[in-house]
Amino acid sequence: MTTSDQQFRSLDEKSLVDYIKSTPSLSSVVGTSDNLVVKEVGDGNLNFVFIVSSPSSSLVIKQALPYIRCIGESWPMTKERAYFEATTLKEHGRLCPAHVPEVYHFDRPMSLIGMRYLAPPHIILRKGLIAGIEYPLLAEHMAEYMSKTLFYTSLLYTTTTEHKRAVAEFCGNVELCRLTEQVVFSDPYKVSEYNRWTSPHLDNDAVAVREDNVLKLEVAQLKSMFCERTQALIHGDLHTGSVMVTQDSTQVIDPEFSFYGPMGFDIGALLGNLMLAFFAQDGHATEENDRKAYKKWILRTIEETWNLFHKKFIALWDEHKDGSGEAYLPQIYNNPDVWQLIQTKYLRDLLHDSLGFGSAKMTRRIVGVAHVEDFESITDANKRADCERKALNFAKTLLKERRKFVSIDEVVSTMQQADP
Amino acid sequence: MTTSDQQFRSLDEKSLVDYIKSTPSLSSVVGTSDNLVVKEVGDGNLNFVFIVSSPSSSLVIKQALPYIRCIGESWPMTKERAYFEATTLKEHGRLCPAHVPEVYHFDRPMSLIGMRYLAPPHIILRKGLIAGIEYPLLAEHMAEYMSKTLFYTSLLYTTTTEHKRAVAEFCGNVELCRLTEQVVFSDPYKVSEYNRWTSPHLDNDAVAVREDNVLKLEVAQLKSMFCERTQALIHGDLHTGSVMVTQDSTQVIDPEFSFYGPMGFDIGALLGNLMLAFFAQDGHATEENDRKAYKKWILRTIEETWNLFHKKFIALWDEHKDGSGEAYLPQIYNNPDVWQLIQTKYLRDLLHDSLGFGSAKMTRRIVGVAHVEDFESITDANKRADCERKALNFAKTLLKERRKFVSIDEVVSTMQQADP
Repeated sequence: MTTSDQQFRSLDEKSLVDYIKSTPSLSSVVGTSDNLVVKEVGDGNLNFVFIVSSPSSSLVIKQALPYIRCIGESWPMTKERAYFEATTLKEHGRLCPAHVPEVYHFDRPMSLIGMRYLAPPHIILRKGLIAGIEYPLLAEHMAEYMSKTLFYTSLLYTTTTEHKRAVAEFCGNVELCRLTEQVVFSDPYKVSEYNRWTSPHLDNDAVAVREDNVLKLEVAQLKSMFCERTQALIHGDLHTGSVMVTQDSTQVIDPEFSFYGPMGFDIGALLGNLMLAFFAQDGHATEENDRKAYKKWILRTIEETWNLFHKKFIALWDEHKDGSGEAYLPQIYNNPDVWQLIQTKYLRDLLHDSLGFGSAKMTRRIVGVAHVEDFESITDANKRADCERKALNFAKTLLKERRKFVSIDEVVSTMQQADP
Repeated sequence: MTTSDQQFRSLDEKSLVDYIKSTPSLSSVVGTSDNLVVKEVGDGNLNFVFIVSSPSSSLVIKQALPYIRCIGESWPMTKERAYFEATTLKEHGRLCPAHVPEVYHFDRPMSLIGMRYLAPPHIILRKGLIAGIEYPLLAEHMAEYMSKTLFYTSLLYTTTTEHKRAVAEFCGNVELCRLTEQVVFSDPYKVSEYNRWTSPHLDNDAVAVREDNVLKLEVAQLKSMFCERTQALIHGDLHTGSVMVTQDSTQVIDPEFSFYGPMGFDIGALLGNLMLAFFAQDGHATEENDRKAYKKWILRTIEETWNLFHKKFIALWDEHKDGSGEAYLPQIYNNPDVWQLIQTKYLRDLLHDSLGFGSAKMTRRIVGVAHVEDFESITDANKRADCERKALNFAKTLLKERRKFVSIDEVVSTMQQADP
């Protein structure tokens, strides 16, 4: 047992109050009065989350336990993930403060983060998408978050020295990387006790995924890129459950899977989960609301997210082309033609990576261990299976054909054809 | 000044003898008698190298100084490179003892390695290639070395946990990586005080390299791969000056540039330098020896090196497919068709990477800072320039067209056409 283990104790509503009272960086936010109210609200798969409120203000406490909460002590998982989550919250928050909640406090031995409470009407984006709520600034905000966090942590902006130092540090988050490798890139393509799907409806579809050699070849390449390519400090789990929204606020939370990986894994997670939301809409349609207009909004949001990301990323690159980034030296890439050539190639490749990872993220949510509420909340199994099958078939096509797309518009057209 | 700096002192012939006498792992090899003979033989760019001999045996001492030897204290370079060199010598030596000299001793504060003396007739391979000597086992041995060191340190064999631990450690060799980035991927493509070429003969050729947008786009992608892809523990400088040979022995030395990078960087370094040797032969032809037969041997060696590497690498992969490697789980890649699909794709991509890096290595030796003796020893500047131009033009074509090649035979045919 290490010192760190000895200093760890899991907190409950009661002991948390004492902890806060004795921690100035937290008590300065909510005070030390006797009427602190603590509510455990963790609905995620991994951690405990508490909202602590005084009459005048609130904060959130997140504590990682040394196993996966939704499965229990039988699936151990290092609580050191909290260190990487806190580090990335602070780093991404520094780069994009408008869309990352502030960290007030981090206690490494306790694997405990104290952070800004995202007050109502903030809700998890996924729940908003299920409810059919439009978020007019979502694409703009997510493009802002992704372009800043990915650009500034890549070799387009940093030096090799800083890059390798940071890569080395985040190699420490290996257990969470392994979990992603298993649940995203492995389990859905083999027989696994953890896999599940809408049965018997999708039984044959699940078998087809496991028997599709070309699909498995493509997945292998994505997995290699995930394991080997240290392109930027990525969030690592940027699905619609890791984003909290209101009509004018967008906040990215839960980067405990963060590490230096391929940018397309973040962009693909977001796009892929918006695609899942799209294919789930028919299951949420009612006589009053056929969701047709909402589906159009989702498609527009997918398009705008990529296009705005593209625009902002290029703008950052142009702005910093004479900066400290070592990938493309201005003395080499020294004329407008070559500058356009490299940017076009970089963003084209990134689109293809994103579509690939997005596809893999969709597939694993339909035939893998962890499903999404977009589909799970469709109670009619026939309806749910229809939605899931459309999404799965689209994901398979997208993964195999992604290199043919030169713009997101073409992807969206293909989605419409897949769901006429 | 750190403790490590305080414990460092550069050794000369005299102080080295005292050092050896007080170091059991060295004195057990050469003894402690008063007739130890020390000879400084470092002809490389970076370090001091001594041969220490007693009447009965010898060893080599290599000491890194905190700057680049051939340039002087004006170009500082961490002496910590010796740590990575020793670590990789030991690791690659464990994986392929037949082709890596044994390390007797490593002193980190002193940046000093004591290792096996490669006795005559061992010579540097590059010198043998200039002299026109055939090495019938060279291809076999280098294929053996590369297949074992690259396979066993990749995710085809190791777990993600072990891989990320090792990647993190070798991130520490960042200064040597930066040097490669500069001299291989940057300087040749821009105006740099360090660049030189056979002038005025190649003046226009050097300008053409700097003005070739497509070439620079390709180089950018190779540089990104070099900086971002942690595929295996590569030697990092595997040219023909890093190999010592006799008719039946092949020994790989000097892995101070080693880190987790793309496999193709090692394979390409070797193939690219064999290609340079090929294009230099006309400059070494005499009335007695037109070098035509020797050129054929070099081409055969290039072909055999790749083909034997391919065969051995696949054999290792097949042998360990049920092992601990996490890249391709046997439960997923579970039929002969998909197995062949992934292996063909992996090796095809690796060939293309190798040809790309090989091209970049050729170009930088003709218009960059560090040249090769293959060309430098051609005293007639006209002749030298002719050889260099052929090599440079071939390298440019190979870099741009490499994805069209499906076998090494086609590459060799193209070389023959480039040098009719």
